[in-house]
Amino acid sequence: MPEAVETLDGWYCLHDLRSINWTAWKKATSDERESAIYEFNQLLEKWNQTEKNKEGSHALYTIVGQKADLIMMILRPTMDELNEIETEFNKTKLAEFTVPTYSYVSVVELSTYMARGKDPETDPELQARLKPILPKWEYICFYPMDKRREGNDNWYMLPMEERGKLMYSHGMIGRKYAGKVRQIITGSVGFDDWEWGVTLFAHDVLQFKKLVYEMRFDEVSARYGEFGSFYVGNRLKEEEIPQFLHV
Amino acid sequence: MPEAVETLDGWYCLHDLRSINWTAWKKATSDERESAIYEFNQLLEKWNQTEKNKEGSHALYTIVGQKADLIMMILRPTMDELNEIETEFNKTKLAEFTVPTYSYVSVVELSTYMARGKDPETDPELQARLKPILPKWEYICFYPMDKRREGNDNWYMLPMEERGKLMYSHGMIGRKYAGKVRQIITGSVGFDDWEWGVTLFAHDVLQFKKLVYEMRFDEVSARYGEFGSFYVGNRLKEEEIPQFLHV
Amino acid sequence: MPEAVETLDGWYCLHDLRSINWTAWKKATSDERESAIYEFNQLLEKWNQTEKNKEGSHALYTIVGQKADLIMMILRPTMDELNEIETEFNKTKLAEFTVPTYSYVSVVELSTYMARGKDPETDPELQARLKPILPKWEYICFYPMDKRREGNDNWYMLPMEERGKLMYSHGMIGRKYAGKVRQIITGSVGFDDWEWGVTLFAHDVLQFKKLVYEMRFDEVSARYGEFGSFYVGNRLKEEEIPQFLHV
Amino acid sequence: MPEAVETLDGWYCLHDLRSINWTAWKKATSDERESAIYEFNQLLEKWNQTEKNKEGSHALYTIVGQKADLIMMILRPTMDELNEIETEFNKTKLAEFTVPTYSYVSVVELSTYMARGKDPETDPELQARLKPILPKWEYICFYPMDKRREGNDNWYMLPMEERGKLMYSHGMIGRKYAGKVRQIITGSVGFDDWEWGVTLFAHDVLQFKKLVYEMRFDEVSARYGEFGSFYVGNRLKEEEIPQFLHV
Amino acid sequence: MPEAVETLDGWYCLHDLRSINWTAWKKATSDERESAIYEFNQLLEKWNQTEKNKEGSHALYTIVGQKADLIMMILRPTMDELNEIETEFNKTKLAEFTVPTYSYVSVVELSTYMARGKDPETDPELQARLKPILPKWEYICFYPMDKRREGNDNWYMLPMEERGKLMYSHGMIGRKYAGKVRQIITGSVGFDDWEWGVTLFAHDVLQFKKLVYEMRFDEVSARYGEFGSFYVGNRLKEEEIPQFLHV
Repeated sequence: MPEAVETLDGWYCLHDLRSINWTAWKKATSDERESAIYEFNQLLEKWNQTEKNKEGSHALYTIVGQKADLIMMILRPTMDELNEIETEFNKTKLAEFTVPTYSYVSVVELSTYMARGKDPETDPELQARLKPILPKWEYICFYPMDKRREGNDNWYMLPMEERGKLMYSHGMIGRKYAGKVRQIITGSVGFDDWEWGVTLFAHDVLQFKKLVYEMRFDEVSARYGEFGSFYVGNRLKEEEIPQFLHV
Repeated sequence: MPEAVETLDGWYCLHDLRSINWTAWKKATSDERESAIYEFNQLLEKWNQTEKNKEGSHALYTIVGQKADLIMMILRPTMDELNEIETEFNKTKLAEFTVPTYSYVSVVELSTYMARGKDPETDPELQARLKPILPKWEYICFYPMDKRREGNDNWYMLPMEERGKLMYSHGMIGRKYAGKVRQIITGSVGFDDWEWGVTLFAHDVLQFKKLVYEMRFDEVSARYGEFGSFYVGNRLKEEEIPQFLHV
Repeated sequence: MPEAVETLDGWYCLHDLRSINWTAWKKATSDERESAIYEFNQLLEKWNQTEKNKEGSHALYTIVGQKADLIMMILRPTMDELNEIETEFNKTKLAEFTVPTYSYVSVVELSTYMARGKDPETDPELQARLKPILPKWEYICFYPMDKRREGNDNWYMLPMEERGKLMYSHGMIGRKYAGKVRQIITGSVGFDDWEWGVTLFAHDVLQFKKLVYEMRFDEVSARYGEFGSFYVGNRLKEEEIPQFLHV
Repeated sequence: MPEAVETLDGWYCLHDLRSINWTAWKKATSDERESAIYEFNQLLEKWNQTEKNKEGSHALYTIVGQKADLIMMILRPTMDELNEIETEFNKTKLAEFTVPTYSYVSVVELSTYMARGKDPETDPELQARLKPILPKWEYICFYPMDKRREGNDNWYMLPMEERGKLMYSHGMIGRKYAGKVRQIITGSVGFDDWEWGVTLFAHDVLQFKKLVYEMRFDEVSARYGEFGSFYVGNRLKEEEIPQFLHV
Repeated sequence: MPEAVETLDGWYCLHDLRSINWTAWKKATSDERESAIYEFNQLLEKWNQTEKNKEGSHALYTIVGQKADLIMMILRPTMDELNEIETEFNKTKLAEFTVPTYSYVSVVELSTYMARGKDPETDPELQARLKPILPKWEYICFYPMDKRREGNDNWYMLPMEERGKLMYSHGMIGRKYAGKVRQIITGSVGFDDWEWGVTLFAHDVLQFKKLVYEMRFDEVSARYGEFGSFYVGNRLKEEEIPQFLHV
């Protein structure tokens, strides 16, 4: 049996995607709409406080196309907190005007392919990567993925050394995009339907395409990558929410 | 034809996953909500009595993410009882506020790869594993799976001896998690769309990921495992139900 | 081109699976519910008469799990009658409280692998198998299936002699379950999305699992079987309908 | 690159399948129902006139099973007319009581494998096949299909000569059913999700099964055929519509 | 690792497909309908102005069959504008009567297989292709696609030289249709679920079928093409909208 790579795991992560039921939203009274926005802002305020305390982080973006209108990405130290936050949102007024379209449950993960020779408990860089404060960049891209296990293209039957080499050169592509694309890998084996979630942030949305396309020619993706749906979106700042929801 | 492994079969099992229609729930009067919770508690009380009498067992967890809000896992000596319980729940007030999202029908199964040389009718350990009282641990993980039958990766064309060896080393991984993860295997060939259901319980949710990921590098999973959706959740104690459903 | 096996075809068959909209059902007045049950009973009475006259047969079972609540399996000499029965049911009061979840259109089929040397028009055993009165056994199991056509595992490219040998040994497994499991094979090439429907009846529901699992190690299933959804259920006697629908 | 076979193309074709919302239909007043039927009859009358003028053709059948209740198959000289007819139907009263379940957009196609040496513009047989008046036979069978492109089973990588030979022997099977099954092939490459639609008409519904099953052992289907959903139904004559819709 | 081809990227593109809820539309008052059409016309007027200013382009077509009734294809210099336009449409009165059925997010893309030796920033032909004003031709065809990565048919493992040769001969087929079919390729790696969107325009709808079918025999499609759903439609001129929506 090929040796399993050990992972370092950080904060738990919920990607929660919603569509807005615009017809119902328009039919609500303006009082209802205002109080829904007010309540949602209070929730965000609480999340901001958590982020300030470095007890979690979150991101809020609108999604382009019909797959969703909103994505909330939430990081917390425990799975229990994710469940509570999800339930708390579900009970809000705003939630009555949203339709769940996709969600993803995972945990921030660093493979030890990357972390050799460092002590994850004390190394500040590893700690910062395991408990990341999400960047406030203009664009988000999210997709889940698997490593393939098909016929001769079976990642999990490769010797660890070969996997390590392949991941190293794969990582080199990512490094070329340093400063342009920030990447958060979350592991979801045992938690959700794919093995990993990939969340990318960028100032220029085109960099998502350049990065993912370049990686697709790399053997790790070309032979071993299986990809789920891709979601791309624009940052929704808190002060823009009223405008976004104005009808 | 490769010899089929004989299985030992215990209690029948229904995994019943539901989402809560929070909008409808909020629109109900507080009287309706209270009586719905009261009635559900009475159902749980009956199930508790059955468990005390060792005539069955059950578990209740909330599920993280949009795939479901609740999972009820029910074990009973007969398929008829599962059907009755499902129908009884469907007729409750609470059920009016839930949406079925997934279910799984199976039976607790031990393969004789594991049970050689013991008499399942009298061996207390086997009896306890065939008619398990579900642990009251903090987290649940459920997923269905198949053994692959594709080209050169066809589990069912392997000689029994090879399957036995592979399952033995696969089982060795599981044993490393003794005390951390408790595993219930239920067989569903002829009962539902996948061949097995795997239900895991843990005190630390991260152990699900570690176990499933480590197993994925084992040949049984790497070459022969096909996996359905993964559901992960937090235990919902009876006394926490009113809080969970409070709106 | 491998020679096609000729089939003998008997009564046409509709599997009609429905979920009950329990919320709507509870909201109906008790008068509405009573008259819905009365009307459904009259339909069943008509079907019973048809069965007595040996002009068809039918079975009614509840289904365990969320895939459906009810299955009606209907056999008739013509496709037209199936269509009429389906439409007649759709117009009933009870149908207003059901949601269609799956259906299957096929015809009772015997392969001439099995029937060599007998005259199907006169042989009483063949006639009884082509126009079967469905057994009133406690449990039902239904699933559709295909013979695989993939790469080296292409059933339809095998010479007839090899297919005959494989089917013969496959049939031998079935015979071991004589008295325990009764099997109705219906062919659906040209009628529905899979090539065959398999309907099993048993007194002990565990026999479904034992039979299907044992067969899975047989080359016909292991290399060449593709399976759809499995539905398992308990017999719903007419006198139990009011209890089942009581709210 | 293997040479593409040239096709002859005739009338455009829309298969439009609908379920009836029986509950809503029953809740309509009898006036509404009558006027809905009247309006639909007028539409049919217009289509009949078109057919008399040899400017198109159509067929109306009920579908067995839950996939649909009705199929309207419409042939017209232009795609624009199909779009107009679809929109016209969507605006009728009857359409309010139907739910779209499937549709297929294609064009009557003859492969030049079949048509060698004839002038399609003048040959009366080819003209009749390109602009077919649909037969008023008792049963319909419709399914979409692809030619496979997988590993060693890649139809589009075969030399034209081999494709021609394979299609010739495939066609020979079809000819054995002359008088029993009438077949309309419509091409949908670039128009819909599969490459072809196959529509069969028969006096005896069992002939669909015999034909499709016999063809499945032919290499063209066995190695190269991929099939979508199968729909089978009974002819709905105009004078039978009131009875069919009577509630 | 095979060298990734560099792409030139132009305007961002949203394909937004909608069905019309005709029943609700008919139930609206004629005032509501008129004001919905008026508001939509104003939106189109704004888009026309943008097109005149060469700051974007758009197309409006009806779709044949049940997959959608309308397609809006929108090109803009930024992803943000697409998101704004989508949200603006969602807030219109007309949107209340539409149901989202599919959308696609991408960016106009030219591969440098095609563009060698030209400066994309200044070359007028490249600029016109990167920021295309959509033709006002009678028919549209849209489908998403991937390059295959399966076993021996793995596009992304081919050397760039071989990919270039294959794409060149593929392009030669397209050129034969110059004047008959106009093609816009948009890249969606990192943006949506497929790798490319293909949008074709034609005066004669049959040319879509001829082009796509001829290409299917080319190795690039035959061995390496994976295709999503195909949507085909007729141009909806602004002055035809009232007629199209007249009930």
